Amino acid sequence: MTPDAKILAALRANPDGVSGAELAEQLGISRAAIWARIEELRKLEYEIEAGPHFGYRLMTSPDVLHADDLLGQLGKTKVIGRDIRVFEETTSTNDVVEKLARDGVKEGVVVFAEAQTKGRGRLGRKWISPPHKGLWFSILLRPDLRPQLTTQLTVASATALRRAIQVQTGLAPEIKWPNDILIDGRKVAGILTEMNAELDRVRYIILGIGVDVNLTANEFPVELRKIATSLRIETGKPVSRAELAVTMLRELDRDYALINAGKFTQVADEWEAHCTTIGREVTVRLGERLIRGRVESLDEDGALRLRSEHGHLERIIGGDVTLEK
Amino acid sequence: MTPDAKILAALRANPDGVSGAELAEQLGISRAAIWARIEELRKLEYEIEAGPHFGYRLMTSPDVLHADDLLGQLGKTKVIGRDIRVFEETTSTNDVVEKLARDGVKEGVVVFAEAQTKGRGRLGRKWISPPHKGLWFSILLRPDLRPQLTTQLTVASATALRRAIQVQTGLAPEIKWPNDILIDGRKVAGILTEMNAELDRVRYIILGIGVDVNLTANEFPVELRKIATSLRIETGKPVSRAELAVTMLRELDRDYALINAGKFTQVADEWEAHCTTIGREVTVRLGERLIRGRVESLDEDGALRLRSEHGHLERIIGGDVTLEK
Repeated sequence: MTPDAKILAALRANPDGVSGAELAEQLGISRAAIWARIEELRKLEYEIEAGPHFGYRLMTSPDVLHADDLLGQLGKTKVIGRDIRVFEETTSTNDVVEKLARDGVKEGVVVFAEAQTKGRGRLGRKWISPPHKGLWFSILLRPDLRPQLTTQLTVASATALRRAIQVQTGLAPEIKWPNDILIDGRKVAGILTEMNAELDRVRYIILGIGVDVNLTANEFPVELRKIATSLRIETGKPVSRAELAVTMLRELDRDYALINAGKFTQVADEWEAHCTTIGREVTVRLGERLIRGRVESLDEDGALRLRSEHGHLERIIGGDVTLEK
Repeated sequence: MTPDAKILAALRANPDGVSGAELAEQLGISRAAIWARIEELRKLEYEIEAGPHFGYRLMTSPDVLHADDLLGQLGKTKVIGRDIRVFEETTSTNDVVEKLARDGVKEGVVVFAEAQTKGRGRLGRKWISPPHKGLWFSILLRPDLRPQLTTQLTVASATALRRAIQVQTGLAPEIKWPNDILIDGRKVAGILTEMNAELDRVRYIILGIGVDVNLTANEFPVELRKIATSLRIETGKPVSRAELAVTMLRELDRDYALINAGKFTQVADEWEAHCTTIGREVTVRLGERLIRGRVESLDEDGALRLRSEHGHLERIIGGDVTLEK
């Protein structure tokens, strides 16, 4: 952790205040140096009060993503978030992580962007990513999975994101297979899984995650307003992006560890409990092919088991799912 | 086609010779310009005789890969080989094609290298690729396949390569699942399938192909001499790499068209007829897991159906297969 991250961590651990002397001792630097760091943090719009009785006190944090601060708040994880990088603007965070992957960077690195100029959704769609309004981030993973099992990862990500949103906002998000997070039927977050693989060996996977946090209704394009929403619209107030980001990384790390330990069924159980797709009549578009049927369950690979209108059991690993009723 | 390719095509079509006047008319350039092009081709070591009675006659072609000449010899294909590029040396032709894929180049482009400094085999292994001794090439494909069906492509490639080698050399190569070509039990060619995909959509596939054409026994590393061979060793004489390359591209184009037309079973039938893995007792290593059993057949996705020693029917899409007896 950098000195800034340590100071912020100490301030957060002591909401009533912590003295300059204590901070100086914890960090092993002078009180004057602490003062200088506090001044720098204030320039980044951390509101830090100082007083003779309570020392330093963190009043509010700015609505920006600060890599050191995120690392400090996240604390120790197994894999995800041990390296965090924040960009003010990128084309797509998946592109940045892809480059890191090719350069041999270790799994678990997370890249956030305050804005994306070419955010991508599934199936080549655009993802609107206006500055400072959402969480647009990507995670590099190098799991020991066959390409056919990567659906497990998508399911685990959706489960972790859903849980994080619930913990942080009190809302009750649902999952639409494979990886959309909805609130009252409107999409609030999505995941794009990109993979680089040999026939039978995954080289790396990039999880691209987009969460509409603080967008207001008029910040969505007109054509999306009926099908998309944000956490701010749903809760009626702004949501701390940094806190939500930290919670998401922690939950993703947990579920990734479960999959690596071969405990996918545990993830799948939670997924099924929150999935609005189970038991529903759906239409799945696979390229040109349309399959209608009733969703029975998730199989052990994370694929959807669908009883088609002709009575066949179909195994669906992707495509565009429309809920029929 | 470039003028050089057109001249070479005309010379090949007329082994008894073709006059400068005819060439000039066919190409729409002067006889002096034809003469100048012939001189350039001679510098590339095409042996071209000239005489008052027969005009120009192609006696021998050099053992080099010449993109224009390959294009001219190949003629019109549906997809594969409509764009051919030859490098004197690359790290790996798959790397070059990967870059082309990212730049949006159309499917079907083929990149040959006379030598690779970092040739790769399956599962992270090295592939020895000494200069001018083999065919080391990669093909960019953008099939409309789900990632789960890409095994079909591997099977089709092996089938096409096997057929091309048989046509060109008269040898009787066998296929070892999924994509090794063997002669008398020793490997002569291999395929590395690399994929870039979303969860349910292939963005592109790179088929990397290595064929040991004219290596002599002492050009193989000692540890490979018992398990690898070359076409030259097997036939007892050098094999024209250019002719073999053209035949391979033509056969690959044919089988790729079959798959795109949904006629994989036709490919699979030919594959099974030449596959030494069918009916054999094998051990398959999948990461840490070993599965022993008898290979029954290929399924419609190109996966191996294996009856395990415990009587279960297992579906094998990759891994390391060892023939037991």
